Amino acid sequence: MNIVLLSGGSGKRLWPLSNDVRSKQFIKIFKNEKGDYESMVQRVYRQIKTVDADATVTIATSKTQVSAIHNQLGEDVGVSVEPCRRDTFPAIALATAYLHDIQGIGMDEPVVVCPVDPYVKDDYFEALKALGEQAAKGEANLCLMGIEPTYPSEKYGYILPATKEQISVVDTFREKPEEETARAYIAQGALWNGGVFAYRLKYVLDKAHELIDFTDYADLFDKYETLTKISFDYAVVEKEPNIQVMRFAGEWKDLGTWNTLTEAMDEPTIGASVLNDTCNHVNVINELNVPIVCMGLKDVIVSASPEGILVSDREQSSYIKPIVDQIQQQIMFAEKSWGSFRVIDVDEASLTIKVTLNSGHSMNYHSHQRRDEIWNVISGEGTVTVDGMEQAVKAGDVVTMQAGCRHTIFAVTELKLIEVQLGEEISVHDKQKFELDA
Amino acid sequence: MNIVLLSGGSGKRLWPLSNDVRSKQFIKIFKNEKGDYESMVQRVYRQIKTVDADATVTIATSKTQVSAIHNQLGEDVGVSVEPCRRDTFPAIALATAYLHDIQGIGMDEPVVVCPVDPYVKDDYFEALKALGEQAAKGEANLCLMGIEPTYPSEKYGYILPATKEQISVVDTFREKPEEETARAYIAQGALWNGGVFAYRLKYVLDKAHELIDFTDYADLFDKYETLTKISFDYAVVEKEPNIQVMRFAGEWKDLGTWNTLTEAMDEPTIGASVLNDTCNHVNVINELNVPIVCMGLKDVIVSASPEGILVSDREQSSYIKPIVDQIQQQIMFAEKSWGSFRVIDVDEASLTIKVTLNSGHSMNYHSHQRRDEIWNVISGEGTVTVDGMEQAVKAGDVVTMQAGCRHTIFAVTELKLIEVQLGEEISVHDKQKFELDA
Repeated sequence: MNIVLLSGGSGKRLWPLSNDVRSKQFIKIFKNEKGDYESMVQRVYRQIKTVDADATVTIATSKTQVSAIHNQLGEDVGVSVEPCRRDTFPAIALATAYLHDIQGIGMDEPVVVCPVDPYVKDDYFEALKALGEQAAKGEANLCLMGIEPTYPSEKYGYILPATKEQISVVDTFREKPEEETARAYIAQGALWNGGVFAYRLKYVLDKAHELIDFTDYADLFDKYETLTKISFDYAVVEKEPNIQVMRFAGEWKDLGTWNTLTEAMDEPTIGASVLNDTCNHVNVINELNVPIVCMGLKDVIVSASPEGILVSDREQSSYIKPIVDQIQQQIMFAEKSWGSFRVIDVDEASLTIKVTLNSGHSMNYHSHQRRDEIWNVISGEGTVTVDGMEQAVKAGDVVTMQAGCRHTIFAVTELKLIEVQLGEEISVHDKQKFELDA
Repeated sequence: MNIVLLSGGSGKRLWPLSNDVRSKQFIKIFKNEKGDYESMVQRVYRQIKTVDADATVTIATSKTQVSAIHNQLGEDVGVSVEPCRRDTFPAIALATAYLHDIQGIGMDEPVVVCPVDPYVKDDYFEALKALGEQAAKGEANLCLMGIEPTYPSEKYGYILPATKEQISVVDTFREKPEEETARAYIAQGALWNGGVFAYRLKYVLDKAHELIDFTDYADLFDKYETLTKISFDYAVVEKEPNIQVMRFAGEWKDLGTWNTLTEAMDEPTIGASVLNDTCNHVNVINELNVPIVCMGLKDVIVSASPEGILVSDREQSSYIKPIVDQIQQQIMFAEKSWGSFRVIDVDEASLTIKVTLNSGHSMNYHSHQRRDEIWNVISGEGTVTVDGMEQAVKAGDVVTMQAGCRHTIFAVTELKLIEVQLGEEISVHDKQKFELDA
């Protein structure tokens, strides 16, 4: 199976765990069989590989997520990087061109496009595989997945199939309805639109060439910024008369809010916490290294990360976005392709961060105009390069770097360091990257 | 006025703001007229000095609090240090000997003893002054303050005066009663026992010599550990037939729990926080530098410090002690006589702390057996001494110290540094102090 996972933008609906640089799909919140926590993207990737070990998985996403993807999934996963956000039609067109030109997928091979964050069991990915096989037959230009509705939701679009069979021609689509209307749709046999499309590669590549003037993947990538924002639904689905839908009756959840996310947790708490026995229906997700004590709470969600602390009534938590949009907070934590960093102290003319480099990785060779830096290696072994001079380092070693000097560090083993930044104008934008001569 | 403030032990009733090294009286939670936050001990000290600029204030406390007292009140305040805790009679005897032998207070001068943490207006200290003047007259051996009760509390002892006059002979005392009994006492004209005694210095010094075999303050201090634990009430008050009580009808609150403390806050929140409009009767005290967002909460107290996070129903917060007693948490923050420190990162073989030294102060000259240390100066100017060698330092300077080497730093201006500790067995007990040759 060739599967494209659409990895959406950053969002604050799950603040403080999600922020401008960490999307919800990267939060490690689900326990896998080994007892380790995994993120939504790790869970979905693992499930796909369980169902189809040979699956070609490509993540369509913006460049801000590339580091986190490689950090969580390793280097083998394909990534179709959108230079900027242009909605789903350009994103799917780019990913399709990437599959053809870079991954060498043939014109008649099926492609399945799916959001990166459904909370499902393995049977869902079995169904995606079947959907791809159905698309390969060419009976229809597009094959969608229709989820059997469990209640008259106002959150989803609806698909009306022509028949009640497992695979049916699509009669019509309906936008997100009011509850009463949803009830009527369901009575007519409507299915939830799960945002999944399967097609033969050629179909979308042709559509892309019809609507966009480009030669190949590289050309489309280069002119991506000039493209019009348009959704795949609007550009393709609504205009296509020949669409099939395949029913799926398994478990399917969309964990976009604190309310739904916490319902899917295996245990009520993650991280250090103590709840007294007067607490009822309380979830705690604590990414800090100090405990959270809860007493006498009912239907409350508590979440703490280096970004901040949320304490919310379960139902109110759906209305978080405008509240956290008011908060001006510098990024306190980020995952990078080479590891991660966390801000541990902010002062007037200094910033102190803890950096973890994964074994075998290094950060970019770079310099800063307006700040000096000091590296205090606290664990591991590595190699530091400063202005072209290489030096082995280990725990206890200190490296000082004046503003303007070029520097990087390569981790021979996992390496951690405390970086002290000193200057009056410390900014993430004060960074020049260089090529490191081999 | 000569006033002795009894500064009680550490406690966890206000965790995470109070902990094993920070007692509740040092938490900065009250806004003074300048708009700065001050602690209970700072508020009380300021009020005493407002009422009587010449007052001799002596804090009777354990050595663990001496740093915090000097840090918050400066060097002028007298401190009678109890080498260990031996309850209130030995503490008051020691403070009284300190007043006589060290401060030179005469035998006939009055002394007022008062807890360090009443939440009161200035009129309370006017009343203490009057109480001292009453004691000086010598009409009675002890003069107590009786608070006019506002409700039949079960939390306080009661004093039954012989008459309804402002100053009366005490008829009898009653232990903390049940509510019904309290109601009956109040009907009989009983007053709350506010834990305040005034006496002529000689009276308590004589009692001390009667009950303890010692020569002077230094001798009493030396044998303090051998003394029996006994309360002043039990050793003196209950056996004394000649006691007066003076009524006080002003505002008087005992802020010992989250519930009472938050009721005394001038504004519902301290520190970075956002409460949405569905919150009702919510208090937030946030000592962290990231925001707390509260949504849809009612009657909830949220408090965050480097030690941890409390989220509690207002009423439940009274039952916090057994809950936090379960928590094994290293000290994450402490005030010292020379400044303060905060743990900012804990790893397997390293600990990183931020140290702030007040201008003109230095830490002890000391060494560690089992850890190396690195100082990264991030602001200010000072002088470092390492194994007897002195060196001026400023922001950006790095000092590395191997295990065993003796070191200290003196702050010429306020000085901040990031200290990276490296070793397999990092412990606060691994510290040897030395004299620094001038």
